[in-house]
Amino acid sequence: MMIDINCDMGESFGAYTLGNDPAVIKAVTSANIACGYHAGDPVVMGATIRLAVDHGVAVGAHPGFPDLMGFGRRALETFPGEVKHYLLYQLGALAGLARAHGTSVQHVKLHGALYNMAAFDERLAREVCEAVKAFDPTLILVTLPESPLARMASHEGLVVAREFFPDRAYSDSGALAPRSMPGAVIHDPQTVRERVLRLVRERTVRSMTGRDVPMEADTLCVHGDTPGAAHVAAAIREALESSGIAVVPLHRVLAGRRRETA
Amino acid sequence: MMIDINCDMGESFGAYTLGNDPAVIKAVTSANIACGYHAGDPVVMGATIRLAVDHGVAVGAHPGFPDLMGFGRRALETFPGEVKHYLLYQLGALAGLARAHGTSVQHVKLHGALYNMAAFDERLAREVCEAVKAFDPTLILVTLPESPLARMASHEGLVVAREFFPDRAYSDSGALAPRSMPGAVIHDPQTVRERVLRLVRERTVRSMTGRDVPMEADTLCVHGDTPGAAHVAAAIREALESSGIAVVPLHRVLAGRRRETA
Amino acid sequence: MMIDINCDMGESFGAYTLGNDPAVIKAVTSANIACGYHAGDPVVMGATIRLAVDHGVAVGAHPGFPDLMGFGRRALETFPGEVKHYLLYQLGALAGLARAHGTSVQHVKLHGALYNMAAFDERLAREVCEAVKAFDPTLILVTLPESPLARMASHEGLVVAREFFPDRAYSDSGALAPRSMPGAVIHDPQTVRERVLRLVRERTVRSMTGRDVPMEADTLCVHGDTPGAAHVAAAIREALESSGIAVVPLHRVLAGRRRETA
Amino acid sequence: MMIDINCDMGESFGAYTLGNDPAVIKAVTSANIACGYHAGDPVVMGATIRLAVDHGVAVGAHPGFPDLMGFGRRALETFPGEVKHYLLYQLGALAGLARAHGTSVQHVKLHGALYNMAAFDERLAREVCEAVKAFDPTLILVTLPESPLARMASHEGLVVAREFFPDRAYSDSGALAPRSMPGAVIHDPQTVRERVLRLVRERTVRSMTGRDVPMEADTLCVHGDTPGAAHVAAAIREALESSGIAVVPLHRVLAGRRRETA
Repeated sequence: MMIDINCDMGESFGAYTLGNDPAVIKAVTSANIACGYHAGDPVVMGATIRLAVDHGVAVGAHPGFPDLMGFGRRALETFPGEVKHYLLYQLGALAGLARAHGTSVQHVKLHGALYNMAAFDERLAREVCEAVKAFDPTLILVTLPESPLARMASHEGLVVAREFFPDRAYSDSGALAPRSMPGAVIHDPQTVRERVLRLVRERTVRSMTGRDVPMEADTLCVHGDTPGAAHVAAAIREALESSGIAVVPLHRVLAGRRRETA
Repeated sequence: MMIDINCDMGESFGAYTLGNDPAVIKAVTSANIACGYHAGDPVVMGATIRLAVDHGVAVGAHPGFPDLMGFGRRALETFPGEVKHYLLYQLGALAGLARAHGTSVQHVKLHGALYNMAAFDERLAREVCEAVKAFDPTLILVTLPESPLARMASHEGLVVAREFFPDRAYSDSGALAPRSMPGAVIHDPQTVRERVLRLVRERTVRSMTGRDVPMEADTLCVHGDTPGAAHVAAAIREALESSGIAVVPLHRVLAGRRRETA
Repeated sequence: MMIDINCDMGESFGAYTLGNDPAVIKAVTSANIACGYHAGDPVVMGATIRLAVDHGVAVGAHPGFPDLMGFGRRALETFPGEVKHYLLYQLGALAGLARAHGTSVQHVKLHGALYNMAAFDERLAREVCEAVKAFDPTLILVTLPESPLARMASHEGLVVAREFFPDRAYSDSGALAPRSMPGAVIHDPQTVRERVLRLVRERTVRSMTGRDVPMEADTLCVHGDTPGAAHVAAAIREALESSGIAVVPLHRVLAGRRRETA
Repeated sequence: MMIDINCDMGESFGAYTLGNDPAVIKAVTSANIACGYHAGDPVVMGATIRLAVDHGVAVGAHPGFPDLMGFGRRALETFPGEVKHYLLYQLGALAGLARAHGTSVQHVKLHGALYNMAAFDERLAREVCEAVKAFDPTLILVTLPESPLARMASHEGLVVAREFFPDRAYSDSGALAPRSMPGAVIHDPQTVRERVLRLVRERTVRSMTGRDVPMEADTLCVHGDTPGAAHVAAAIREALESSGIAVVPLHRVLAGRRRETA
């Protein structure tokens, strides 16, 4: 049994520090590194890649909208082709820095408003798929499971990783409950740990209504920018490993899944 | 006999158009494409790469300082490591877009204030060499001949291309005359053409004082942002080709030089 | 009989030139000057104010979204309070430069996507009204006539100017026909001139279906960024003045309207 | 006896928080508020002005170079007129937001590299004086005492405030010791408090060599971005007030000085 833990990182900018990367890096196996559009600058990106390499953590791109003032959290209208080019630019920039640190880009996970919009908007989803295919068709795309983007990417032959949110509630259909819904965010660390263990061991999650729902996941998303985030992430990893579950970078999880299937 | 013609391109941004790339592309063999810091945006970069590919023109990076408001023409203090990371970021971004268009980055030529500062400042020169080596040690570095940067890069084993400015005067020592000096810019197109032919055929240039000075060059720098620039560039190319001189991308010129030497 | 002619100006940025301000300035009486967010920089703003002052043209603010890459033409989600603050910032910046040139800000006209969104979105409209009131309750707000924003602003006691688009078609209800509709843009200069004269003299416009529709307007919007724009604007002004209609800055038009009403 | 305490504030940006403004605001009487170029955004500026107004703290502009990535700490070449326009833009922007909060701009203090460069470069100093005069000739300019800028501004009839750095060492000539010099920064809080009291009561400071040097000051500069900064600032204020020294905004200090002189 294997699972990956991913976290957004490298979201500092110039004199500004965001998150606690040196602590979080110890708990995760895949880092989603901001690429200079919604956050991050070349020096921060280089330092974050260095940190990841030094901890055996796989490097991924975390591209966003060109909106530093809004931290990429605001929906932005784009004209056809813009998102595709924004992704190629940011993927390339991260890959350039990764190469200088002797590594390469394992995966891509969109950020903020772009993550949410591309998951459901067909034109944006298509541009995301085109960008990934054109840049590197072996790149792993981390996205919302069962979303139109996830389906389109699979259909296009891309490698799609299914993401699970340990501290979020799910509906009976296995859909993520929106944050605005009461009970959508799970605050009790013990409950979070149990959900994660059950997910990996039984491929099941207890829904908001109390039903057991089948759920497949390749990677767990943890947060780095809230107080105590690093601690929660470390506790999840500890729980997994002490239960004999290997916490390894996403590409190894997916290779394992492929062997299983074969 | 072979020579390359290079020109800065892709310096438009969003709604803003600069230069006349569709005309200039017909005259050149290597395009220095802005990478989003002093000019250029991902859509412009993609379109410029497409234009280059369609015309058999080699793609190069034209990275600059992060100063869109000043178009990268203003000296900017940087702290150690910043320039290296700015280059890796911009090189990577262009490479990402180039890959999507089925090509790769042939060369790098710094822009504006960064070009001038890195040519003579040892720390900056070192960061440029480190960035090129870490990104791709076969990348051609186009720089001011005989500058400290050119010497350091050669010493480091990088591939250095020697650039000649057809419309600029040179001193007896072969140094470029500063623009501020009277007579530093040559306006007569016929004189420009003759200088270029003599440079390629006799490896000689007439200095400001009237002396014949030996001069080696791999590429001619033409301008794209002045009225009539495309016309001047086309005239230079026409003069070269009608004299039996092959105008080809830089990598072919340098391969030829290596065969010659061997 | 009096009317104002307004035009977007000062939309250059750094090394980038957009529009033909030195020609357009001769035809207009109110300049909508970009404020550094979607276009414009402090030097451009200062030069544009200087140009306006030298030609007896009134200075207005033309604030937009913080999206230089998209020239403020793309819808951007904002959180409560952001638009109000973006407006105060840009209004203040222009006022600071205006003061240095011995003038002050006469009016404000929103740019691009912000113009379109704030005209119809109640929260944004409210933030616009709050910003104008807090900054200077005597500032003239140029907006789409009969839009929710226009009504709210009037209701709030703000000075609202009604804008007419000489080269655009209107429906029977007096609403502006969307650009996407066939026939929405009127290209014949003679037709444009006739519509303008009839608007001012008879307060009437011929609709797309051929009906005569009553129409009140305080200012005519002309474009500065298309080829021949300055020529069209000059022709409109010429037609007006040779018909004995005074073409004067907006504040004088509105003062005249008030005298009329009193 | 009166003195002002000033501190840089409002240097957060979007999702990024810098410093601890809610704590620092309690200790100071004049706030130098970043204006969106090196730091700050309109929402942050508005919130910081609100905080200042609510605590009876005077609002000042803290303009910097347009270099968010470098936090305005890096020297930037500028062409004639650029700095003047950058200042007018930023001063105006802050004034626009201040007006919306029922207050106005009391003073201006340059930030980072601009502070250092303009203090000694004659062209920049002239542009600063021109900007302040054109914007508001009654604005107080906080600058390095005895610097060429301070002298030029006084000569031009501007109101200049003399700034003292409580945690910094001074030479026998009364010049600030550069940070790079050993002993240039005073870390002991008790020593800092004693120096401040002596400065206000005896107009004297003990130099690095142990000499008593005469020193006039209108405002004390405290830092907000280091851990414990708010505590140090509070301790300085406490020491002053418990010694019967009034800690009041800069304009009141200067009004008092004028009465003294008259």
